[in-house]
Amino acid sequence: MPPVITAFAASPDRGRGLARDMAVRWALEEVGQPYDVRLLSFADLKTPAHRALQPFGQIPTFRDGALTLFESGAIVLHVAGAYPGLPAGPVARAWMFAAVSTVEPPIVERSMAILTEADRPWHADRLPLLDARIATRLADLARHLGDAAWLEGAFSAGDLMMVAVLRRLAGSGLLEAQPALAAYVARAEARPAFTRAFAAQRAVFEASVGADPAR
Amino acid sequence: MPPVITAFAASPDRGRGLARDMAVRWALEEVGQPYDVRLLSFADLKTPAHRALQPFGQIPTFRDGALTLFESGAIVLHVAGAYPGLPAGPVARAWMFAAVSTVEPPIVERSMAILTEADRPWHADRLPLLDARIATRLADLARHLGDAAWLEGAFSAGDLMMVAVLRRLAGSGLLEAQPALAAYVARAEARPAFTRAFAAQRAVFEASVGADPAR
Repeated sequence: MPPVITAFAASPDRGRGLARDMAVRWALEEVGQPYDVRLLSFADLKTPAHRALQPFGQIPTFRDGALTLFESGAIVLHVAGAYPGLPAGPVARAWMFAAVSTVEPPIVERSMAILTEADRPWHADRLPLLDARIATRLADLARHLGDAAWLEGAFSAGDLMMVAVLRRLAGSGLLEAQPALAAYVARAEARPAFTRAFAAQRAVFEASVGADPAR
Repeated sequence: MPPVITAFAASPDRGRGLARDMAVRWALEEVGQPYDVRLLSFADLKTPAHRALQPFGQIPTFRDGALTLFESGAIVLHVAGAYPGLPAGPVARAWMFAAVSTVEPPIVERSMAILTEADRPWHADRLPLLDARIATRLADLARHLGDAAWLEGAFSAGDLMMVAVLRRLAGSGLLEAQPALAAYVARAEARPAFTRAFAAQRAVFEASVGADPAR
């Protein structure tokens, strides 16, 4: 029995690979481990059965035999440890935590502001403050990366998580302001494992559109 | 040579154990590993020498022989793996990531709003939105905890990171609205390792005040 992950039946990102199952699919593809997917509706996320696996009612979860995990970072770390092919030593783990704890929060804050506060009178004045916080992080990251291909030597779980986070900036123009980072993301997106993971989540979205022509 | 961590010479939290060296000190105390501390001024954080260790110009860093790490979560994970005494299995790691990636971001967003937007015209209207986001996470966490002492069996690196995050809510009233979580934090703060770590960072703050009576 291959491991089973959960993902949205109809992802709000419309198949752009920005939902949190993407990093887990990508990690499983990097190590060449087949997996099954259980698709969940938004109503499913609120059920006690799902909350028992994911206390915050999110996706993805990961089940492998008796082991159940949640949090994409923890799942990627587990996959990297369980199968060869995706380095995740101490420094790679520092970059994983930097991705989700230092780089991502201001990016999510910006997305949340656009999603939930765009009609508030303060939104236009706040957005530049949020952009500036993200730009500072990106400048620091670009300075570290320099002209290297990856953050620390070979492609690692740290790069995987960092790219998954940076991809959330698509359409903002902020990534393009740091050409070395835009090239870093493009380099990661060209990896065969990324391409396979992207196609798999995209197929789920396209099936959901086919099932509901009104979408 | 014991490992060396960096911390603020004059922490902006005024010795309340809310700076990010606290989790690392606490983990080292849980495993009984002595450590040295190198204190940094705010000017030190911006130097190329520090940026080489910490690309985002933050504290803490961790050096042990040839290994240099950053990100408190990654350092705690490394300490838990290098010495016995602090469980950090796959599920504990899920809680570590949940702490820094799911529970902490809205808490930091609230702190940032109070720190940097309190004089903006929108602040009074926004604060309840931020409080509501945090309250949702806390309710989910309290539901999972139930009447257990710790998140998953014995005290783990997941509890350590979660408590470090929840302590940032001190003074907000949000934690007190979930008595089981307030008791969980108090239980963790009563651990001898926490007490020692807290006293160590407190002593640094008090020395900084003694050195500058104007503070």
